[in-house]
Amino acid sequence: MVFTATSLEELAEHFAQLPGIGRKTAHRLALYILKMPHEEVSALANALLTVKEKVRYCSLCANITENDPCIICSDPKRDHSLICVVEEPNDVLAIEKTNEYHGLYHVLGGVLSPLDGIGPEELKIKELLHRVSTTHIDEVILALNPNVEGEATTLYLAKLLKPFGMKVTRIARGLPVGADLEFADEATVTRALEGRIVI
Amino acid sequence: MVFTATSLEELAEHFAQLPGIGRKTAHRLALYILKMPHEEVSALANALLTVKEKVRYCSLCANITENDPCIICSDPKRDHSLICVVEEPNDVLAIEKTNEYHGLYHVLGGVLSPLDGIGPEELKIKELLHRVSTTHIDEVILALNPNVEGEATTLYLAKLLKPFGMKVTRIARGLPVGADLEFADEATVTRALEGRIVI
Repeated sequence: MVFTATSLEELAEHFAQLPGIGRKTAHRLALYILKMPHEEVSALANALLTVKEKVRYCSLCANITENDPCIICSDPKRDHSLICVVEEPNDVLAIEKTNEYHGLYHVLGGVLSPLDGIGPEELKIKELLHRVSTTHIDEVILALNPNVEGEATTLYLAKLLKPFGMKVTRIARGLPVGADLEFADEATVTRALEGRIVI
Repeated sequence: MVFTATSLEELAEHFAQLPGIGRKTAHRLALYILKMPHEEVSALANALLTVKEKVRYCSLCANITENDPCIICSDPKRDHSLICVVEEPNDVLAIEKTNEYHGLYHVLGGVLSPLDGIGPEELKIKELLHRVSTTHIDEVILALNPNVEGEATTLYLAKLLKPFGMKVTRIARGLPVGADLEFADEATVTRALEGRIVI
């Protein structure tokens, strides 16, 4: 048995298709929508359509944007000789939140994962090589996730980038701030020891 | 710093206003929408608007419906002399899922909660009394949640309904199926003992 109103059930079905939303949450959301003021629901529906209409990928860094090139690539105050390579647009967000990085980005759109059929052709690697060969770049920072696929992609990219002569770095792997050495896994502690710096 | 695309950020803001969706989930959902096929996004947007347009409350039981009276109230195969009083439309769903109940419902729209300013006037109590006084009802089952407000409302309704002469019952409180007596709280064990039945 489902909702006594078909359209509410349909809405719940739609919600249940979104990631991380189960059937119970979908039903709760549908009921919440029912109680929301009409204007707010219209605004949400419009926001959904607007995103699909307006948002595209930056032709330089492949980050999501409404204007091409994106506000980061077209910002003259940023350091255009520095490129940070990340997997997904969310990663750009994570790095921007620190307010510590003022270079440009390059969004790969994933990592190499042969088992999932993702090879170099599926990622924006050609575009990255084109960027470093046509513009003056001092340093490429590889900021992929520290898992098996991320590591493999980092090494692959480093090998491809080295011939261009710029500095190629990777972000540090070690203990996260606030962590406890006692409870850290061996791999992390190993990386933290390897990456030790002089104080 | 937020998404580099304003409309995506706006969509995330909308998602973050829904219950149980934090900022991180909202961002993830917004990015997921961006990757969804255009037709699916349109369908979701339409579903949202359709719910607000079509869904109303049944004039008899106050449950959500597209047709008034709702499919439960207008079903001749159901026992129209039996009313189950619940708090919210979700509760109707929970009971219908058992496939064990074949009477009608009455959705109160909440429970008495003086601290939140919810008195008898805010609930569909007048409508319930009107129903039991104008139609032939054999039994009213009070199926409110077993918490302080639910208990208070149950007792309040029982007092109001008794004079009409029909049977007034409440759903059993006791150990949930699959539970462990050892880990049950005192209040539940007390209710389970009080509600014991002859086997």
